[in-house]
Formats: sequence, C-alpha cells, structure tokens
Amino acid sequence: MKIAILGYGTVGRGVDQIVAGVEGIEVTRILELPDRCEGPRMTSDYASIVSDPSIEVVLECMGGLEPAHTFIMQALEAGKSVVTSNKAVVAAFFDEFARAAEEHGASLLIEATCGGGIPWIASIEKVRRIDEVSSLSGIMNGTTNFIVDAMIKNDADFDETLARAQELGYAEADPSADIDGIDVKNKTRIAVSVAFDTACEPEIPVTGIRTLTKADLDLFAARGCTVKLLGRAVQRDGRYAASVEPVALPSASLEANVPANFNLVSLEGTTVGPLKFYGQGAGSLPTGNAMVQDVIDYAAGRRPRYDFSRALAYDPALLAGDYVYRTTMPAPEGAEAFGSGAWLVRGLDPVSARTLLDEALAQDPTSFMAALSQED
Amino acid sequence: MKIAILGYGTVGRGVDQIVAGVEGIEVTRILELPDRCEGPRMTSDYASIVSDPSIEVVLECMGGLEPAHTFIMQALEAGKSVVTSNKAVVAAFFDEFARAAEEHGASLLIEATCGGGIPWIASIEKVRRIDEVSSLSGIMNGTTNFIVDAMIKNDADFDETLARAQELGYAEADPSADIDGIDVKNKTRIAVSVAFDTACEPEIPVTGIRTLTKADLDLFAARGCTVKLLGRAVQRDGRYAASVEPVALPSASLEANVPANFNLVSLEGTTVGPLKFYGQGAGSLPTGNAMVQDVIDYAAGRRPRYDFSRALAYDPALLAGDYVYRTTMPAPEGAEAFGSGAWLVRGLDPVSARTLLDEALAQDPTSFMAALSQED
Repeated sequence: MKIAILGYGTVGRGVDQIVAGVEGIEVTRILELPDRCEGPRMTSDYASIVSDPSIEVVLECMGGLEPAHTFIMQALEAGKSVVTSNKAVVAAFFDEFARAAEEHGASLLIEATCGGGIPWIASIEKVRRIDEVSSLSGIMNGTTNFIVDAMIKNDADFDETLARAQELGYAEADPSADIDGIDVKNKTRIAVSVAFDTACEPEIPVTGIRTLTKADLDLFAARGCTVKLLGRAVQRDGRYAASVEPVALPSASLEANVPANFNLVSLEGTTVGPLKFYGQGAGSLPTGNAMVQDVIDYAAGRRPRYDFSRALAYDPALLAGDYVYRTTMPAPEGAEAFGSGAWLVRGLDPVSARTLLDEALAQDPTSFMAALSQED
Repeated sequence: MKIAILGYGTVGRGVDQIVAGVEGIEVTRILELPDRCEGPRMTSDYASIVSDPSIEVVLECMGGLEPAHTFIMQALEAGKSVVTSNKAVVAAFFDEFARAAEEHGASLLIEATCGGGIPWIASIEKVRRIDEVSSLSGIMNGTTNFIVDAMIKNDADFDETLARAQELGYAEADPSADIDGIDVKNKTRIAVSVAFDTACEPEIPVTGIRTLTKADLDLFAARGCTVKLLGRAVQRDGRYAASVEPVALPSASLEANVPANFNLVSLEGTTVGPLKFYGQGAGSLPTGNAMVQDVIDYAAGRRPRYDFSRALAYDPALLAGDYVYRTTMPAPEGAEAFGSGAWLVRGLDPVSARTLLDEALAQDPTSFMAALSQED
C-alpha cells in the first residue's frame, strides 16, 4: 500500500522511520515546503499527491487548522483515506470530515490525535461495540504533567519548571495551548465525540494550570491530594457534560502517580468496567507508531464510522462537584475555609466554577482553582 | 453468527448476558452437566455441538485441563474457531492448539485468559505488528492484589485477609492457584508466548505470597516500597527470561497504587515505548466482555496466528537483580542486612533466588522473599 506524508516534521519523520520496517507499506510521496524538499519523494505540490491514483492513504501531520483542513477535505473528496495526528483540526472539523469520508467511501483514522502511542481511540471504539461508555477522563497532555511532576519532585515553582520543560523540548516556545488547557480541550472533545456518538459542544469549560504555584501543590499535598490537569466527561439519561480543569486527586490514585510527560486515560464501560491506558502521549516514534497502526488497521479492513446523530443534551450539572479557590478575592457566601488563603465551594458545575474563577482572576490575576475529585 | 458456550458458570453466564445485547451473534447451544441442563439451548452431549455445522465458534469457559483440552481440540479439528478464558489449558497446550487451528483453518482467540476485560493479548498482538516487545510485566491476579491491598489498608495479617477475600468471593475455597502464583504463571507464560513468538519454558521460577506478613509489608513500606505479586519477562539478543514472584516496587509507582482486585499489565515496545493497561482482571461481565470481543473480532476478520518457531534461549540471568529474604535462616556470605530479621542478596537470577528461598523454607517455613524492583 502506497501512502503520502503531509509534513516532514517530528511526527512525519517518525512515521517514515517506522514504515521503513513494516512490510507492505511504502511512503512514496512527502509534502514539504519548497525550500525543504529533498530527494525524489518530496514535493511542495499537494495537487500531485491528491491526483495520484496509486496513493491510498494520506497521513496528515502538519498540525494547525489551515491548510490541514483543506488538504484533508481534498484527500477525502478524492476517495483517499486520511490518517491524522492533528487534534486541533479534527476537534474543529470532525463532523465535516466524517461526513466527507462517508460520502466518498474513504476512511478517517485519528488514533494519533489523542494520547500519542496509547491505543485510546481504537480502544474506545472497541468498547463501544458492546458497551455504553458512561464516563471518560484522563491526563492527556504530557507537557503539563511534566511541569506538575517536576514542581513536586524538585520543590520548584511554575515559571522555572516551565523554562526547564522548554529547554528539554517538552514545552513549546509559546506554551499557551498546553498550559491553558486548549490541547486537552481538543483531545477531550474528540474522545467525547467518539465515545458518546455526539458532536461535542465546542464551548466546554476549560481551565489550565498557568497560575498553579508550588504553595498550591503543598496545600493539596497536606490533604493527601495531587493536582493534575484532567479532561473529563460523563453521560447519562440522554445528557452529557465535559470539562477541562485542574483536579485534586488522592495521592494513592493511579492518576496522581503518573510521572514525567506520560499520559493516563480512563473510561468506564457498562460491562467491561473501568479501563485505564498509560503511555507516551507525544513524541516522534510513539505518535508515528499510532499513525502507522492506523494504516495497518486500514489495510486489514478497519473502517471506523463516526456518526454524531445521537441527540445528547449538554448539561454541565452532570459534572457538579466541589471546587477549591486560592485567591485574595473574598470568599462568597457559603464558601468554607480550605487551608490558608483558599476556600472551598461545594456543588458547583464546571461552567459556574469557571465563572467564579473569572471573577477571582479579575480581582487577583494569580488566582488558582481546582476541582476536588469525586472519589476524594 | 451462531456460537456455543461450554460451561454455564460465572463466565459462561456473563457471555450469555452480553451476547443478548450484541447484534449478529446468537448463543444457540450451551454445554452443561446433565443435571444442570435447562431449556432448549442446553445439552450435555458435546458431540451434538461439534457436529453442528451451523456453529462457527465454540466459547470454552469450563476451566481446568480436561475435558477442556479434548473439547478444544475436537472443535478445532472440526474447523470451528475457539474462544477461551481458560488460562490453565492454554498455558499447557498453547502450541498444540495453535498448530491444530492452523491445520484446520480455524482460529484460537485467548483474550479472556489474561487480564479479564483488559484488552491485553490483542494489544500485545497489535504492538507486535510494528515493534519488538522487549519486556512485559504486571499484576495479573486480582485475588492476591486484593489481599495485599487489604492487608495494608486494614493493617491486617495474611490469614484473616484471605478469609475475608474468600467471604467476598475474591478468593476460592482452595486459594492455592492464586496465592502460590500458579495463575500468574499461566498468564505470564501465555503473554510471553504471544509477545516473544516462542513457546515459553514450562518451568519458570514461581513464588507466591503465602508467607507474606503485615510485618513484611511494614518493612518494605519503611523503605518507600510496596510488595506486589508480579509476572515478569524480558528478551534481548536471542534470549529471554520469565518469572513470577513478589516484587517490592516504589510506593509512587503505578503498580504500587493498584487497588482492590484490579490488574495492571505493562509492556515496552521498540517505538511505542512503555504501555500500561489497567482494569478488572476477572469477573463474570469483564471476562465475558473479553470473550465476546474476541467473537466480534473474529466476525470482523481477525485471525490471530501463533507461531512459536522463534528459537529464543531461556536465560534467567536476564532478570537478575536484588532479593530480600525475611527468614530465621542465617544469612549466606555476602548478604547485607535489610531491616530487622531480613537480609538482602544482590545480583541473583530468579532461579537462584528461588533455590535460596527453598533452603530458607526448609529451615523456617514462614520465610518470605521479594525481588527489589530494578527502578527502585
């Protein structure tokens, strides 16, 4: 099977390296910028790839919304199947891609958009052959997990730890997408859409860890908790909710003990019960591995169908719980003290919790918020 | 697709319940003892199942070696594919079953033999499409994990905790297969055979947790470790090793934080890196789920082929490490003190370690041994 790679960066190179050791798959074309083209496989002319009938699958690993969106649509409309690692473009255009794939007899395979080398999307799809998924959650961003883990292990504060992560290549020069939770939001929305058969609401509440301090981690540690940035979602009775926010988890939970830049994603199925999957959520070879696994699955006949016709109502109340705020803003009525300089509000849904954080941030831009884990 | 269930116990009932909700699969025959047959689907005559051309897949969930072995061979020889949850019979006859399946154009699907509802065998097979598996390990027995976890959480000793596990249905009346590591041995040998493409040596060293005391757990806790019963295996340079034994792991590891009767299994792949899978390792619905997933995979065209022709040499030295012995037997030369009443021997392979434990047990039948985790 002949395939084309769009974008020869970290992931594209990983794919190329892995495919070289896999029988029956060959990278015949690679799309790159004109000044980066080297050797006979590379071209900067996408039309020559889309119009090449010998290419069955296009692997998009350019990232970003455009031209990735246009290129994916052109491939699908040409009847070529698409494998992508681009969480931003899939989160934004999942429904459009799925319909185009269906209409043109092509497939869309997205394992590499969530959790790098972890077989997460394929596992959700497998579980759904038998079970309803009642909830999913996870540490889906290696950068922020690395930062929190290093802050605790090195007794260091946020800024110096972020700088170290940037030096090590675990965080980008502009770290916003990671530390503000945008990356987790994209992955959560993709996983929700696959698990719940519904196009996930674009405006789920999102809070990152930009204002997290070592003192915050100490405050929670004193209560036997560790803070992790989680994407979470639940569904029941025709309704669903999803959120991205820091969550204080019991120190003895699996989540609390995920080290370095690893990911851990979880789901709860009707008959299989809870399942958790751990591994490298990013990187050239793990993400390349996920893309090549998708190609091998496709070659073996796997044709995922994404149908978002299920009418689930978005109801953040399904995720209601207790939230802790560390802020100099005076506590609202009904709040309880939670250590020094922090207070606890019970029974907030994640949208109301985020609204209250916005009020706190307006008065004290250093304010931090974390949900308390339900199992806590 | 019409299927037959052999054995209508805990797992067989789970399968039947799950299949009722899955389109395209129907349980048309159930083999049971004559005095347990009820309704038109049940029979005690296996010949009527094997000779029924409408039945494509036979699901063996009787357990034990015979008649399971004979029934599986008869099904395969009749060209019927077999799905089984029976780790004992697969560990004992894996090679014979695989050859019979190949010869008669049938398939053997064994997801439910290891890790209950965790997609463990299918994940190893998927990883192997691209990667070599350099190591695998895991908590593969829920009963012993429940016992260790409850001993720690309830500050209780082994016997009373085992009795409680028996009351709760987590341990059998004769708990030997669980607490002596036989069940983990079977699962480890199956996983090794699949991961390394070699028929795993029958006589790998096996040590259970029968002599584990609360004082032992306290001894390791004081060093920041938790003891778990692990199956482990590694391969490199044409050699492999496997063992089953208690291992002292850092308290902050994922393994150390696996609660109750859950399982956590891990592998390391060349390009995907480390992957870990967590879930219910036993029970009617999780194990039934794994069997029905195998049936759906089979219906979708999955035909696992087990080829054990790779000539890997068994070399326990690959798993050499440090071992702690709590015993009244005098320490051998070169041993170091390890807290009160225990000593440490460095650089033992698991076979030598087990031999030393046997010497200790001959003098002090309460002796306990644990390997120190390499990451420790």
